[in-house]
Amino acid sequence: MVAKNLVNLKINAERLRTNFDELAEIGATVDGGISRLALSNSDLEARAWLADQFEATGLLVNDDDAGNLSGVLRCPKRKAKTLLVGSHLDSVPNGGRYDGAVGVLAALECARTLKEAGLQLPVHLEVIDFTDEEGCWQSLFGSRAMSGSLSDEYINDKSVDYGPFRAALFRAGIRPGDVNRARRDPATLAGYIELHIEQGYRLHQWGVDIGVVSGIVGRTTYEITFYGEASHSGTTAMSARRDALLGATDYIRAAYDRVMQDFPDGVFNCGNMHICPGAFNIIPSEAKLTIECRHPDEERIAAMESALIRLAQEEAISHRLTVGVRRVVHMPAAVMAEPVMTAVQNACEMLGCTYTTLVSYAGHDAQMMSGITPTGMIFIPSVDGISHSPREFTEWEHVVAGTNVLLHTILMMAQAEAD
Amino acid sequence: MVAKNLVNLKINAERLRTNFDELAEIGATVDGGISRLALSNSDLEARAWLADQFEATGLLVNDDDAGNLSGVLRCPKRKAKTLLVGSHLDSVPNGGRYDGAVGVLAALECARTLKEAGLQLPVHLEVIDFTDEEGCWQSLFGSRAMSGSLSDEYINDKSVDYGPFRAALFRAGIRPGDVNRARRDPATLAGYIELHIEQGYRLHQWGVDIGVVSGIVGRTTYEITFYGEASHSGTTAMSARRDALLGATDYIRAAYDRVMQDFPDGVFNCGNMHICPGAFNIIPSEAKLTIECRHPDEERIAAMESALIRLAQEEAISHRLTVGVRRVVHMPAAVMAEPVMTAVQNACEMLGCTYTTLVSYAGHDAQMMSGITPTGMIFIPSVDGISHSPREFTEWEHVVAGTNVLLHTILMMAQAEAD
Repeated sequence: MVAKNLVNLKINAERLRTNFDELAEIGATVDGGISRLALSNSDLEARAWLADQFEATGLLVNDDDAGNLSGVLRCPKRKAKTLLVGSHLDSVPNGGRYDGAVGVLAALECARTLKEAGLQLPVHLEVIDFTDEEGCWQSLFGSRAMSGSLSDEYINDKSVDYGPFRAALFRAGIRPGDVNRARRDPATLAGYIELHIEQGYRLHQWGVDIGVVSGIVGRTTYEITFYGEASHSGTTAMSARRDALLGATDYIRAAYDRVMQDFPDGVFNCGNMHICPGAFNIIPSEAKLTIECRHPDEERIAAMESALIRLAQEEAISHRLTVGVRRVVHMPAAVMAEPVMTAVQNACEMLGCTYTTLVSYAGHDAQMMSGITPTGMIFIPSVDGISHSPREFTEWEHVVAGTNVLLHTILMMAQAEAD
Repeated sequence: MVAKNLVNLKINAERLRTNFDELAEIGATVDGGISRLALSNSDLEARAWLADQFEATGLLVNDDDAGNLSGVLRCPKRKAKTLLVGSHLDSVPNGGRYDGAVGVLAALECARTLKEAGLQLPVHLEVIDFTDEEGCWQSLFGSRAMSGSLSDEYINDKSVDYGPFRAALFRAGIRPGDVNRARRDPATLAGYIELHIEQGYRLHQWGVDIGVVSGIVGRTTYEITFYGEASHSGTTAMSARRDALLGATDYIRAAYDRVMQDFPDGVFNCGNMHICPGAFNIIPSEAKLTIECRHPDEERIAAMESALIRLAQEEAISHRLTVGVRRVVHMPAAVMAEPVMTAVQNACEMLGCTYTTLVSYAGHDAQMMSGITPTGMIFIPSVDGISHSPREFTEWEHVVAGTNVLLHTILMMAQAEAD
């Protein structure tokens, strides 16, 4: 098999469209979005639909112990490695039709195209739908399990009641005690490739067809709680207060300024704030913030975290408060594999697609998979960068172009295994 | 009757202490505080206890249609006016033993002292416990009803479900449709005097026995909601966001600075903030603030409100947000009557108490009563200014001194009616 001979091989865009429209019916919301939360009935229905597609295509259907669903185009060669291609079918509540779904459908369409063409790859080609990428229960659950990064506290934790999660796993036929059996031996893998919408506006704004992802930002979330003293808002002079809310608000502004100034490639968000006791006439004694920071460079994210914690301590002191810091989640930054990036770039050039390399500021299953196998991602443009919304949209020609780039990236990666 | 002949008349401090300790048992919390929420079982028990005290003292017990409970020392004179003296027995959740209670008990003790001394005042002396001063249901409910300031929306409102409030009124024997019958004709009143703990730290800090209240701050509460756009916190550049929370935090800081700079006698508080959607990885689309401002001068409070609203609009514009402003409650500022202030000052001088005039930054029933009758308040020191807390404390000698000042203020006010 020589990939260059197959330069004219293309996916069936119409068949892909039919699949896309069928899938978008499952969990459809009234305003054109999708609610297909991981392990929900809609998600299970989408998986059943996908398994049917695998069977109809003649792929070997496989459910692993973390609920990851795959269809394998087997290679008869002894000791063939597996090239994984896929994404996820689950969505956020009232999310869009493209996020995750296009990656799985594109992978399926590539397998179908290759099978129809009668090609025998030197690798097993495994089309995969990962469990709970969005984190309805636990972000990147399926790819964490597969990459061996799922420690017990993701299912059992003294401080969180995971009972409903365990029940949802059972209902989906997943035994919580067995999820780590989904772990793969890196020696058996040839790589992982994921097509995904960008979810940002860079490609759209620049008018570029394909984003060759060079890395995925690391992300850390914190719960930062400022503690002051509740007192009567009328009788406590403004200068004499220990107002937890005022300390928190000054902190948020300072954190924004610090990140924008010292970490130009980083991002910061305060997504929530909870105030106690919360009455209009009582000085707040407690302000609990949910913050996160992201950076493409694992060392810089550590520096960012230190800066943000130091800032919280400084604001607490200057407001005569105390502060508690709890690190909730850390996802390390991931670097995409050079050979996969090169394969994607070559595929783009072969197909006449414009491309650019960029960093992903959103998390993806590729983040976990990059820990155990050479991994790459192909981004296609999101109109206006809108995502996690019913208004999420990607021009169909970009979906088709991206799927063809995925097809030829698969061929190039497979070729490398043959050599 | 000439008050000056009675210079040596004193209340019975021991009897007052016994009453204070008995009352503090009703609704006592484990950490030494009081939970006697208006119309709760504890509140009803305290009222029953107070009615028993009235009967034992030989006062005429009276329940009005708003649940205000009083004991009247009748004057046989035809067309005698009524001098009201009292406060409230209800408390905030886990509040202190002094707030409200000392005012009612001091008034009771004065009536008892006068009755024991065989004095016939030229006025009816009415000791009163007002319903729901603290606003468990509606702030200053009883004094609002008595002063004719209780419009229908305090019990029936299209935007709020007052069902539980109406049920609580019924349970306490109060018919919601009849509460306005509690209104008094100002021509029948000689005045209203209220002893209360300061709830601030000024008297305690200055080492002064008695505060002669000159006015009560007006208070306005607002709900201010900033609206932005929810988006992915990773993929939305920090400079491109429409972050409702960031707008809200900048607003709070700006409001603090503006009030402290332009309204030195005013106070501002943001007591709560509610964020939507509230996920760590979504830019907040909505931030709802609960704010209040207080000022002793009714014109300045209006200027303060305008300034705060304008500031919200400016912050919204500069953050590319929109903003909604809802005025929730306005309590007008109240001015205390000169003759009552003079009587309190004269009583202090006669008894050798140090005193100073001051403004109350907390609301009181006197605020409503001042609209219909000459009203005054006597403040006694709160240790460290702590109130609405089990740690609320006033030196017993200050309670006794305040009650004696109240006694002689009553005598002077009654004397003025005789002249």
